[in-house]
Amino acid sequence: MNKEILEKYAELVYKIGVNLQKGQGVEIDCSVENAEVAEVFTEVGYKLGAKLVNIRWNYDKTAYLNYKYAETEALAEVPEWFIKSKEYLMEKGFCRIAIDSEDPFAFKDIPAEKLGAVSKARSKALKKYSDCIMSNGIRWCVVSVPSKAWAEKVFPNDAHPEDKLFDEIIKTMRLNCDNPIKNWENHIAEMDKHAKFLNENAFEYLHYENSLGTDIYVGLADDHVWLSAQEEAKDGVKFVANIPTEEVFTCPHKEKINGKVYSALPLSYNGQIIDKFSLTFKDGKIVDYSAETGYDALKSIIETDEGTLSIGEAALIGKNSPIAQSGILFYNTLFDENASCHLAIGKAYPTTVRNGDKLSEKELLEKGANDSVEHVDFMIGTPDLKVTGIRKDKSEAVIFTDGEWAI
Amino acid sequence: MNKEILEKYAELVYKIGVNLQKGQGVEIDCSVENAEVAEVFTEVGYKLGAKLVNIRWNYDKTAYLNYKYAETEALAEVPEWFIKSKEYLMEKGFCRIAIDSEDPFAFKDIPAEKLGAVSKARSKALKKYSDCIMSNGIRWCVVSVPSKAWAEKVFPNDAHPEDKLFDEIIKTMRLNCDNPIKNWENHIAEMDKHAKFLNENAFEYLHYENSLGTDIYVGLADDHVWLSAQEEAKDGVKFVANIPTEEVFTCPHKEKINGKVYSALPLSYNGQIIDKFSLTFKDGKIVDYSAETGYDALKSIIETDEGTLSIGEAALIGKNSPIAQSGILFYNTLFDENASCHLAIGKAYPTTVRNGDKLSEKELLEKGANDSVEHVDFMIGTPDLKVTGIRKDKSEAVIFTDGEWAI
Repeated sequence: MNKEILEKYAELVYKIGVNLQKGQGVEIDCSVENAEVAEVFTEVGYKLGAKLVNIRWNYDKTAYLNYKYAETEALAEVPEWFIKSKEYLMEKGFCRIAIDSEDPFAFKDIPAEKLGAVSKARSKALKKYSDCIMSNGIRWCVVSVPSKAWAEKVFPNDAHPEDKLFDEIIKTMRLNCDNPIKNWENHIAEMDKHAKFLNENAFEYLHYENSLGTDIYVGLADDHVWLSAQEEAKDGVKFVANIPTEEVFTCPHKEKINGKVYSALPLSYNGQIIDKFSLTFKDGKIVDYSAETGYDALKSIIETDEGTLSIGEAALIGKNSPIAQSGILFYNTLFDENASCHLAIGKAYPTTVRNGDKLSEKELLEKGANDSVEHVDFMIGTPDLKVTGIRKDKSEAVIFTDGEWAI
Repeated sequence: MNKEILEKYAELVYKIGVNLQKGQGVEIDCSVENAEVAEVFTEVGYKLGAKLVNIRWNYDKTAYLNYKYAETEALAEVPEWFIKSKEYLMEKGFCRIAIDSEDPFAFKDIPAEKLGAVSKARSKALKKYSDCIMSNGIRWCVVSVPSKAWAEKVFPNDAHPEDKLFDEIIKTMRLNCDNPIKNWENHIAEMDKHAKFLNENAFEYLHYENSLGTDIYVGLADDHVWLSAQEEAKDGVKFVANIPTEEVFTCPHKEKINGKVYSALPLSYNGQIIDKFSLTFKDGKIVDYSAETGYDALKSIIETDEGTLSIGEAALIGKNSPIAQSGILFYNTLFDENASCHLAIGKAYPTTVRNGDKLSEKELLEKGANDSVEHVDFMIGTPDLKVTGIRKDKSEAVIFTDGEWAI
């Protein structure tokens, strides 16, 4: 990876992503395989005014060995100090950058049940922290860089898969231009327009239909708000939580989902792949599901808790977005979710309900916002997807035709 | 690094080093540059019965950027969760393996005062944990593997410095043989003989002399015990804290050191080099010191606390040890301290006083055992070193002549 491009990359993440403020602390999740990336982020962070830049390292390969050899009980124990290390970020007002490069098949031969049990225990132990992230208690941003194993999955026949994947990531991030910051300001404004239209129309239901067989009504939460790329954190400072991002998204009503939805792209979850799956809903609950690949992994997601029986996010993305246009299957939700309309099993973002970050858990539930320890996006947008908005007075407006914005 | 040799290496560290017991947890300190080493250690650990293997990653290059850009105050703050993460190892009875590969010049352009202030704050915050380590509250082992930057310092003119350094490390670890475990059992027995001789003689003073100008009387603590490679942890299980190790060592009396001592090898401390230095003692206290290189770093060590004005360890190593024979300056204390007789500024190992792990801090001080947040070995053994033992009745025995055991 070219150092000059990495510096532009890091600058974009600090300025548009977490919107680093002078004197703020930064924590960065990074794989040990991307040590030079962490080095660039550390230096750029300080140059832009960070007080302290800490790296929290991870490594697929030792994580795999842990899953392979250690007992579920040992893996599921989350020490008090680890929980405190996450809460420390909240208390000290750090921002958090996750530089993801996970091999989507890293854990493919680990039983889904074991992965699920560990993931569930960890999510439960860290709920206070993940609630903070989901309600924008701190500013955060998820981005990606290639790892060898991931790049080889995306471009199995390429001589230099890591370089190729990095080039494609740079394009999806709209970094291949003279002034990426300005470019992003324009992109944010464009997406805000779509969100404004949807907010003004205040639809009660979205009706999704396509040739895969998807035919589902997704009710929207009371006082739901459509958000797009840029959000406001609790401290009033704006930030962009995903780079790239192409989505305009809101909060479904957890009791008003009826019909059947088919996946449009494979889902990479916990180092495993779930593909060609469907979910059937009745009054907001998943009452049936199937999967040609990764059924056990899907089962473990759905059986996590009460909230993983419903959904917490509905997001709209046009098929002409740079990611969708690339035609590349990234096996990575950050990209694939931005190539396709998606829903998410599990917890709703409180900020997708009006004043949601100030509402209690009970008040959010009453509005229809789902709660869970999980939040798993899955892609449902096909090139022939039609989405119709239905207002309280039963009048309709076509929002998407042939997989693209119709407004 | 050859995987097969790394596996033998890891097996030696688990069996002879920390003496891993079935169902025990392991924490490994490792640089992100040595991820494959961590991978081998993780797998071998599980195969030998570990319950859980955790890696605590470090990276010279981001640590350097932290020192370069962050304020001392921000770096010196040790979060409560970090202290708890260390104490967790004690509570859960983990063993700890440190795989060191630090570039000895990593922090050479950082002011010694800043490094010293941060190091002092961290040592103070982690005193409970370091006391536990030094009194063998948990089993631990320090070993080394090459990093690129370190290897280039040791072999600046070699085409493959990392391979060359790894080969040399393997030799110093006595791994280049058919049965390293058996080989180590013999080595341990041989060193025990020297320790036994010294314990039977119960010397009151050691008198060191050489042509550099060293002429110093080092009084030994009341009830001091000479230890060698293998020690006993609090749980009664034997272990070897350093691999390689060639030293037979004991506890000096912190008020009975008089004379002047010259360094025999450069000292690598906190990513800086201190070379050609001398220390002058009166009644146990350093009253004068000089250094041709790294004076500020030496000053910051000595000024850490009351205890860094005296010494806490006296160790004897013959000049025919494999490390000394290699003639290589490793710029790494693990190796260089085992090439040469050494003393240590700072805290004494409580286990070098009879029943010391059961004595209170006050009782240890009364025996003459020094206390400090620091423990820094420095090398004083030259090829012409003479060490004479002086008993309570003033009778003498020559222990070392011409830098080698004379007993």
